[in-house]
Amino acid sequence: MVEIVAERLLQDLQALSRIGQYKTGVHRPTFSPADMEARAWLRARLADAGLDARIDGIGNVLGYCAAPKRVLVGSHIELQPYAGRLDGALGVLYGIELARAFRDMGKSSMGQNIGVDVGAWVDEEGYYGTKLGSRSFCDQLAADELSRSRHRDDGTPMLAALREAGLAELPHEKIDVSRYVAYCEAHIEQGDWLEANSLSIGVVTGIVGTWIFRIKATGVQNHAGTTRMAIRKDAGLALCRLAVAINDELPDVAGERSVWTTGRLEMFPGVYTIIPGSAKMDFQFRDTEPDVLQRMHDRVDEIIKRLNTAGPCHIEYTIEKGAPAPMAPHLQTKMLAAAEEIAPGLYTRMPSAAGHDASIFSSVLPSAMLFVPSIGGISHHFDEDTKPEDIVLGCRVFARTIESVLSA
Amino acid sequence: MVEIVAERLLQDLQALSRIGQYKTGVHRPTFSPADMEARAWLRARLADAGLDARIDGIGNVLGYCAAPKRVLVGSHIELQPYAGRLDGALGVLYGIELARAFRDMGKSSMGQNIGVDVGAWVDEEGYYGTKLGSRSFCDQLAADELSRSRHRDDGTPMLAALREAGLAELPHEKIDVSRYVAYCEAHIEQGDWLEANSLSIGVVTGIVGTWIFRIKATGVQNHAGTTRMAIRKDAGLALCRLAVAINDELPDVAGERSVWTTGRLEMFPGVYTIIPGSAKMDFQFRDTEPDVLQRMHDRVDEIIKRLNTAGPCHIEYTIEKGAPAPMAPHLQTKMLAAAEEIAPGLYTRMPSAAGHDASIFSSVLPSAMLFVPSIGGISHHFDEDTKPEDIVLGCRVFARTIESVLSA
Repeated sequence: MVEIVAERLLQDLQALSRIGQYKTGVHRPTFSPADMEARAWLRARLADAGLDARIDGIGNVLGYCAAPKRVLVGSHIELQPYAGRLDGALGVLYGIELARAFRDMGKSSMGQNIGVDVGAWVDEEGYYGTKLGSRSFCDQLAADELSRSRHRDDGTPMLAALREAGLAELPHEKIDVSRYVAYCEAHIEQGDWLEANSLSIGVVTGIVGTWIFRIKATGVQNHAGTTRMAIRKDAGLALCRLAVAINDELPDVAGERSVWTTGRLEMFPGVYTIIPGSAKMDFQFRDTEPDVLQRMHDRVDEIIKRLNTAGPCHIEYTIEKGAPAPMAPHLQTKMLAAAEEIAPGLYTRMPSAAGHDASIFSSVLPSAMLFVPSIGGISHHFDEDTKPEDIVLGCRVFARTIESVLSA
Repeated sequence: MVEIVAERLLQDLQALSRIGQYKTGVHRPTFSPADMEARAWLRARLADAGLDARIDGIGNVLGYCAAPKRVLVGSHIELQPYAGRLDGALGVLYGIELARAFRDMGKSSMGQNIGVDVGAWVDEEGYYGTKLGSRSFCDQLAADELSRSRHRDDGTPMLAALREAGLAELPHEKIDVSRYVAYCEAHIEQGDWLEANSLSIGVVTGIVGTWIFRIKATGVQNHAGTTRMAIRKDAGLALCRLAVAINDELPDVAGERSVWTTGRLEMFPGVYTIIPGSAKMDFQFRDTEPDVLQRMHDRVDEIIKRLNTAGPCHIEYTIEKGAPAPMAPHLQTKMLAAAEEIAPGLYTRMPSAAGHDASIFSSVLPSAMLFVPSIGGISHHFDEDTKPEDIVLGCRVFARTIESVLSA
């Protein structure tokens, strides 16, 4: 049986967390100097683990193994600003530890024949776009997507950032699906479900679909003193009403685990002496069930139609529909068996409410995900953490799952 | 009787509107090159009208007359960005026309003894602070206020802007209240009340008090996918609820002409993938009656307390209370008499829902304001306008009012 070495894994996690360290977490945005240092560090670790290690022209870091039967293991190593040390890094370093574990095993038994390739998919956190790294590797980028992509905050073109990072001239690695029997990714849960239920392992049933609404209200900009209340067309108020109505009514149609968020609301011109003539709102909801997503969309649309009929402003929106990604049932079965063997009574099946690179890979390979608990459910914050014993237990279940998949 | 010359007045308005012309309006923010050109133009016009013309160290432009009995007439000449040609300029150019009219009259009758001083108070539009020009002239600035003041958009220090404009070394003019029997200001209405009632003259009863609320909600920032709805503390949603509740409930306690506006609402960090951990809102209401202002404040406070009790976020606020400024009753009586004489049946008493320099002068001199109609109630927009016949009629009533005040 494959045996991971807990010490090696925890030391790697600690070493990586020192690159871009910030308080109890890490600040390592995509293509920042710290991020590029982390990618170089990772390539060296992959090579140490006996893999053919490369960094490609978009920033993906890959390690290919020599064994003839393989699982692809991956996640990401850049982070949201001032975030936690484990988000993404955990899954990539599980991959390295598995590469080493299969290599060590190979010295004695069947390990020569089975192994893992390991990938760190660039920009899963979406500084420049939506999962550009895994989509590049899976050959799912639109022809002009890289040249159109810009940094979400400062507008830096992606191609300029790649040149700056010294990556622009490198070839882009592409997946050869015939190399793999599966894609497997481990990740921190980022919520509090496992912790609240005193569990250590989440076997992911599917990754939620996220539907993103960009909403705009149009009214009439006017003087906040001289314009009588009766004749106002206040676009800011229209969107406040929408946000409240959505929140009050979506529970009627949502699923048990549906979530929805108004993350941004902006009024223009944005001063208290002027009635907002227009306003913008970014809204999203998530669920694993296509039916539930459609029901929520229908209700949001109904609310907007109702507000438009009532007036006096006009609300319109565009929508971007991210489909849910179910995880492969046969891989879930193997992961559940591994969990029962190694962590009996400490596991559960659960959806992933966050997006992951596995949702991209699930369209080209049978895919699976494993979650470990997040202390207090904290995520995208430097206080994010997971108990060392849960990190180790998660890696053992993950390794056993992949061994079982490769031995089938 | 004093006689204004309509041609002269309209020509001046046209000449001034060409400085910084933008579409059908003007772009002339405080201390911009166009604004400084306008101030130099104005000083020359004041001198042409026989006044001792000066520009002072804060940018106020003043013309002092030689007559022993005087009214102070003024307004402002800078504008909100890309705004109309009459906002402020009308009142200042009425002043110049009156200076000329009294001078012309002096050649024949009692004009040698009565006249007007004319002032253009800098930055009434509040790029750097709150009515800094009229407050400087009335000696109501706090000791360090100029050195603390910065541009509302780009943060440029006021003192740096004054140096750049070549004003920093000039003395600051201060009011000698013993020179004046009254302060009078004419202005466009900026609302649609006069037009909607087919009237040409508004005799202002008082200037509204404006109470400004800077509101902050604190929740907990978290992942928009993995955080269950039941445990969220969404600060953005809390302020949307507040804005809607204020709007639904203030009519219960507001006066007939009360107005209230949420002009800005911002969620932090402001992306749809993250539940807002904090949010800010700028809100204001206006009324001429202290009792009504207090009732509205009580209700807003009550709503916030109720939302805080319900949770899960905490809302707090600071408040800046601008007191209403009643116009002097004896001056209103004289203005009503002048209107009845010159524009019978075309005038009304009305409050000013916008703030004006007259609210500052009303604390040191008996003060009066006259409004002319705004076409379509449009204000702070380059389409703002007033019919030429209304501009002329307003000036004639204004002149007759001041003559009557000076003859008393």
